[in-house]
Amino acid sequence: MIIVLKPHATAAHAEELVRDIAAVGLKPLHMPGAERVVLGALGDERILERLHLESHPLVESVKPILAPYKLVARELHPADTIVSLGGVAIGGDRIVVIGGPCSVESAGQLTTTARAVAAAGGRILRGGAFKPRTSPYAFQGLGREGLEILKAVSDEVGLPTLTEVLDPADVELVDRYADGFQVGARNMQNFRLLQAIGRSRKPVVLKRGMAARIEDLLLAAEYILAEGNPNVILCERGIQGFDSATRNVLDLTAVPAIKARSHLPVLVDPSHGTGVRDYVAPMAKAAVACGADGLLIEVHQDPRLAWSDGQQTLDHLEFAALMRDLEPFARAAGRAL
Amino acid sequence: MIIVLKPHATAAHAEELVRDIAAVGLKPLHMPGAERVVLGALGDERILERLHLESHPLVESVKPILAPYKLVARELHPADTIVSLGGVAIGGDRIVVIGGPCSVESAGQLTTTARAVAAAGGRILRGGAFKPRTSPYAFQGLGREGLEILKAVSDEVGLPTLTEVLDPADVELVDRYADGFQVGARNMQNFRLLQAIGRSRKPVVLKRGMAARIEDLLLAAEYILAEGNPNVILCERGIQGFDSATRNVLDLTAVPAIKARSHLPVLVDPSHGTGVRDYVAPMAKAAVACGADGLLIEVHQDPRLAWSDGQQTLDHLEFAALMRDLEPFARAAGRAL
Amino acid sequence: MIIVLKPHATAAHAEELVRDIAAVGLKPLHMPGAERVVLGALGDERILERLHLESHPLVESVKPILAPYKLVARELHPADTIVSLGGVAIGGDRIVVIGGPCSVESAGQLTTTARAVAAAGGRILRGGAFKPRTSPYAFQGLGREGLEILKAVSDEVGLPTLTEVLDPADVELVDRYADGFQVGARNMQNFRLLQAIGRSRKPVVLKRGMAARIEDLLLAAEYILAEGNPNVILCERGIQGFDSATRNVLDLTAVPAIKARSHLPVLVDPSHGTGVRDYVAPMAKAAVACGADGLLIEVHQDPRLAWSDGQQTLDHLEFAALMRDLEPFARAAGRAL
Amino acid sequence: MIIVLKPHATAAHAEELVRDIAAVGLKPLHMPGAERVVLGALGDERILERLHLESHPLVESVKPILAPYKLVARELHPADTIVSLGGVAIGGDRIVVIGGPCSVESAGQLTTTARAVAAAGGRILRGGAFKPRTSPYAFQGLGREGLEILKAVSDEVGLPTLTEVLDPADVELVDRYADGFQVGARNMQNFRLLQAIGRSRKPVVLKRGMAARIEDLLLAAEYILAEGNPNVILCERGIQGFDSATRNVLDLTAVPAIKARSHLPVLVDPSHGTGVRDYVAPMAKAAVACGADGLLIEVHQDPRLAWSDGQQTLDHLEFAALMRDLEPFARAAGRAL
Repeated sequence: MIIVLKPHATAAHAEELVRDIAAVGLKPLHMPGAERVVLGALGDERILERLHLESHPLVESVKPILAPYKLVARELHPADTIVSLGGVAIGGDRIVVIGGPCSVESAGQLTTTARAVAAAGGRILRGGAFKPRTSPYAFQGLGREGLEILKAVSDEVGLPTLTEVLDPADVELVDRYADGFQVGARNMQNFRLLQAIGRSRKPVVLKRGMAARIEDLLLAAEYILAEGNPNVILCERGIQGFDSATRNVLDLTAVPAIKARSHLPVLVDPSHGTGVRDYVAPMAKAAVACGADGLLIEVHQDPRLAWSDGQQTLDHLEFAALMRDLEPFARAAGRAL
Repeated sequence: MIIVLKPHATAAHAEELVRDIAAVGLKPLHMPGAERVVLGALGDERILERLHLESHPLVESVKPILAPYKLVARELHPADTIVSLGGVAIGGDRIVVIGGPCSVESAGQLTTTARAVAAAGGRILRGGAFKPRTSPYAFQGLGREGLEILKAVSDEVGLPTLTEVLDPADVELVDRYADGFQVGARNMQNFRLLQAIGRSRKPVVLKRGMAARIEDLLLAAEYILAEGNPNVILCERGIQGFDSATRNVLDLTAVPAIKARSHLPVLVDPSHGTGVRDYVAPMAKAAVACGADGLLIEVHQDPRLAWSDGQQTLDHLEFAALMRDLEPFARAAGRAL
Repeated sequence: MIIVLKPHATAAHAEELVRDIAAVGLKPLHMPGAERVVLGALGDERILERLHLESHPLVESVKPILAPYKLVARELHPADTIVSLGGVAIGGDRIVVIGGPCSVESAGQLTTTARAVAAAGGRILRGGAFKPRTSPYAFQGLGREGLEILKAVSDEVGLPTLTEVLDPADVELVDRYADGFQVGARNMQNFRLLQAIGRSRKPVVLKRGMAARIEDLLLAAEYILAEGNPNVILCERGIQGFDSATRNVLDLTAVPAIKARSHLPVLVDPSHGTGVRDYVAPMAKAAVACGADGLLIEVHQDPRLAWSDGQQTLDHLEFAALMRDLEPFARAAGRAL
Repeated sequence: MIIVLKPHATAAHAEELVRDIAAVGLKPLHMPGAERVVLGALGDERILERLHLESHPLVESVKPILAPYKLVARELHPADTIVSLGGVAIGGDRIVVIGGPCSVESAGQLTTTARAVAAAGGRILRGGAFKPRTSPYAFQGLGREGLEILKAVSDEVGLPTLTEVLDPADVELVDRYADGFQVGARNMQNFRLLQAIGRSRKPVVLKRGMAARIEDLLLAAEYILAEGNPNVILCERGIQGFDSATRNVLDLTAVPAIKARSHLPVLVDPSHGTGVRDYVAPMAKAAVACGADGLLIEVHQDPRLAWSDGQQTLDHLEFAALMRDLEPFARAAGRAL
C-alpha cells in the first residue's frame, strides 16, 4: 500500500505515521520525494484498514502499489541498476560471462576449468557445492568441502565466484566463501531462502522457476529487496515445455519483457535453457542480441566425465570458441565483452 | 544402485558390504529378502565404482535401480500403503476429506469452521499458519500464534490437523503442534525441507509442483522416504496451464497414473486445482470417481472475508452440501465417506 | 456488435437497419425481444462505423457483444441445449456413450465391434474413414470405402454414426453417409471447415484443440452456429502437456467451465485424453462425475491389431466392464446411462 | 518403409516393384542412388506385408524410415536447401526480411507500406487476403479482392509476395496471384491443405503450430514434400505459453534444433512470436544471431489503425530503424541483409 502525504505534511508527521504503521505489525517504507513524502506499508493490507488512513488529515491518498512489485519496478527507479559481484559490474556496458562446471568436483578440476574460463575472457567462476537434484540418489554436491575448494581456486585464479545456496540455514556459510549467491529455479519461490538472502548484502543471481510468470519472478526478487538487499540479478534459464527436443524452453523474450518492467540486470543461462551442448552457442549469441547483461555457461574439461549436466556442458575449447564468436554480437549490441 | 548378493552370502557378508558402502560416503540400504539379500547404495553412483563390486565374489549383479524412485515404487511394494494421520487412515476404504480455511485467522474463526467441517463429515482440519505468498506484501500467516490456535481448536473440536511448513528450521516447531505436515507446490523440490521432514516420522502431504512431472513428484517423495519417513501422502493440486479460465489445470489423470507407479495414497485439492468456487464440487466428485483417496477443500465461514484464496473457498453450507453430494460417488467407487 | 433499438422502433425500422447492415457487407442478425428489438452485425466492426449507428435516432446503444461468442453463450440462452444425433439425444438425462474403433478397417471388423458396443449399451458408433495423422506415412483411412462400410454397418446394427471430416470439400460426401460430423483437435481452428459444416444442419462433435483456451473452443463453435447450424456438441479430449506419462492432459475442469459459459452439450474423450488404456475407465467415471453429457471411447476387437491408436483402445470385454462400472456413477450424477 | 534393392537390381526391376507397391494402394517413391536403388512405400505399413518384400530376391532390406520425416531430414540430404521465392533466395548467404501488413486493407495502404518495406531493405511483401480469425465476427480479409491488390502492388513496387491460404479449394486461386503460400499456425496440421499445396511447386512458408513439437512441424513439412513440392520454408512463430506478458512464447531454440534435423530454411516471426511491438526488434536480432534465415515482420503505416494485430505491428520508421539495427547482427552471423 502506498500512502501519499499532503504537501504540507512535515518530516515529523511522516515519522509519526511510520511509527503507526510499524505499531500494527506492518513494515513501513519511507520515501521522501521532491514534492511529496510517500510512505509504504508492506504486509497484509487488511491490517492497514485499522489505521483508517484514508481519513487521516495529512494523507492525500492511499492506493495499492501500482505494480505489485515495487522496489523491483522501473516505475519508481527508471535507471538500470548495476550490481557489483566481487568487483565485476553486471548490468553495465560489458557483457559478463560466468563460466564453470555444474558441480565442484575437486580442486584440480576446478582450477583447470577456472583458468580456461579466465583465459577465454570469462569474468566470474561458477561451481555448485550444494546441488538440488531431482533424484535423492544423484550426486548432491561436495557441500562445505566444495565451498572451500571454490574459495581457494578463486583466490588462486583471481575470479570472483557464484554458487548455489539451498537452505536458509546455509546462507551464512555460503556468504563466507562465495562472492555471489545463486538461487536455482526450483527455489525461486522458497520464500524463506529469499528472505535469508535478503538479510545479507551479497549479490544474488535469482533464476526464474520453470512455471513462473515474469511477474512471479519479479515478486520473488521483491522478497529479497524488501529485506534490504538491493543486489539482485535475474536470470532466464528456460521454462517447462512440451517438446523433448530441448530440456526446457528458453524464453528469451523474457529479457526485453523484464527490462521493460524492472531496473535489475538480467542474465541468460543457455546451458540449462536448452540442455543440449550444440544449442548453447547459438542461444548465447541470441541472448546477447536481445539485450541480456550476461551469460551463465557450464564449462568442464571433459564434459563426458562431468558429475552432472555433462550433455549441456562445453569443453574448454568450445568455451573459448564461443567467447570469440560472441564478440561481434556484443559489439553489434553496443557493448563490450 | 542395487547390489544383488549371491544365494550363499550370509548376513555377516551383507553387513560388511553395508559398511563398505557407508565408508565411501554413500547411504546403504539393507533389504533382506526371501531368496536373496539385496543392498542399495544411495548417492553418486560414480563413487561406488571405487568398490569394484561387480567383481566381488559374493555379488551377483550391480544394476541401476529400475524406477529411479525405489522406495516409492509399486514394483517392490505392490500393496497400497495406508498412512495414519492423527488416527485417520488415508489410503484405505474411506475417502478422507480434509477441510478448513486457507489461513488460520483467529481462534474464533477456526473453531467455527472446524465445527462445520466436523459436522459435515470432514475428518481432518487444515489451516495455514505459515503462508507462502507470491507477493511479499500479501498476508504471510500468523506463524507460531497460528500453530497455537490450530492445536487448541484441534483439541477442542476433536479433529487432527494438517498445516504447511516452509522452512527446514520450522519442522520441529510445526511437529509439536500439528498432526501432519503439508509441503506446498512451490516447495515440492525444496530438497532440504523434504529431508528435514524425512527425519520426522509424522505424516506429510506432498503437493505436486506446478511444472512437475509425475516422476518428479515421486522422486521428491523418495527424498522423504530415503530419510526414513514412510508416511507420505501425495496430492494433485493443478499444474501450470495456458488458460486463465481456471487458476491451474487440475490433472486428475495423475491419480491413476500415480497409483500405477506407487503404493502411496493420493489426495486431490480441487480448491487450488481450479481456483473457482463453482468448480470445486464437480471436480471433487470427479476426483473420487477416478480413485483419489481423499480431498483437500478450503472452507471459510464467509469466503468474501477470507484473508487469502476466498474466490476458491466454500462456505459452511456449500461444504455440507458437497459432503452430501459426494456420498453416492464414494459408494459408486466402492468406498465410504 | 449488438445494436439495441429504442422502445418505439417498429418492425419496419428494424428491417431497414438490417438492410443497411447487409449493404455494408456485414451479416445482420435480427433478435426481436419482448421489450426491445436487438440487432446484431457480424463481421469487421470497423466497417460498421461507416453507418454511424450510435447517432441513429432509433438506436439506443451499440455495444460489443458481451461474451465474444454470442450464439454459443449461456447469457442469452440459459437452458441446456439437447442435440439429437441420429435420434439419440445428447445433453439430456441420459449419458450417451459413443464407442467404436479409431479407424474403419473392414466391414467385418466394424460389424463385430458395433455389435459389442450396442450390446454393452453404447448408443452411437464411431469410426474414422478420413484419418488426420501426424505422419504422411501413417495409415490415412479408407476414405469413401470406409464411409460406405460405416453406413452399411449402421443400417445393420442399428446404431447412428459419427465420423471425422477433414476437408470442406468432403462435407457433402460425409453428410450422405454419417449421422454426425466430428471435427478433430487439429482442425478446431480450420475455419473453412467449420463454415462448411455450419452450412449443413447435421450435428457436429467439435473437439478442443491441444493449445485452445475454452474461449477459443467456444469461438470455434460460434463459427458453426453463425452459419446456421445449431447442432454443436463440444468435446474435451486433452490439451498439450509437459509430462510423457500421459499422451495429453485431460482437462476435466473444462466440463463445468464450458457449462458455466455455454448451453451446448459437452462430451469427454478419455481415450485420446489419456492415451493409456488403463486410465480410460477411471477418467470416464470422472468425466461423468463432473457433469459430462457423454463419452467418446475407442473400442476394438483386438487393440493390439488396431491400425491406429491401439495403446489407448479398449477391447470388447473391457468396454462392457466399463459400461457396467459407469452405471452407479451416472446414477450418482442424477442421470441414466 | 524403405526398400533397399540389391546392387544388381536393374531399373526395370525397380519399376516393377514400384508398380507392385502402387497396386496394393501405397504410394511408391523411387530414389535412384549412386550405389543402390532405394524405394519408398508411403502409407499403412501393414498393407506392405502382403507383398512379402523381405523375401524378394532383389531386395536387400526393408526397414522403417530412420527419422519419421524422411524427405525433410538432413540425414539423407546434408546440404542446406535454398528456396527461391519470386527470385529471392531464402536459406543462403543473405538474411531475407519479409515485411508488410497483417491484412491487405486497400491498394493505397498496401502500396505505401510496400514502398516503405522495399526502401528499408525488405525483400518480400507479406499481406493477408484470407485471415484466420479466432472469432467469426472479426475481419476475415478482403479475399479475392485482396489478392488482386497484392498482385498489383507487387507489380508496381517490384517485391514478390507471400500470402496465407486457408482452404485446399483456394490453393489454385492464390497460386495465380502470389509468389509464395503461407500456412498459418492453426493450419499446420490441416493435412488436406498441406497436400493441396504439395501438388503445387510454389514455395510455402509453413508456420509451427502453437502446440506442435519440432517433430510435428517436420512431419507436416513432410506432407508437402511427399506430394512433390520441395520448396518448403519453416517458420517459428511462438508456442502456447502460460504467461500473458507475451502473446506466445517465441521458442528461438527451435532454429538450431530444426537445422540440426532438417535441411530446410527457417524463418522467425517475432511479431506473432511476442505480440508486443517493443519486443519485435530485440527478438528479430536474436533470431538472426541464432541462425534464422529470415524474418517475418508486420509493418503498417499507422499500426493504431490496422484492421488486425496492430499491437504487434511496426510503423514505417520503426521498420526502417530495425533494418538498420539488424545489419551488424547479420554481419556478426557471417551473413548479409
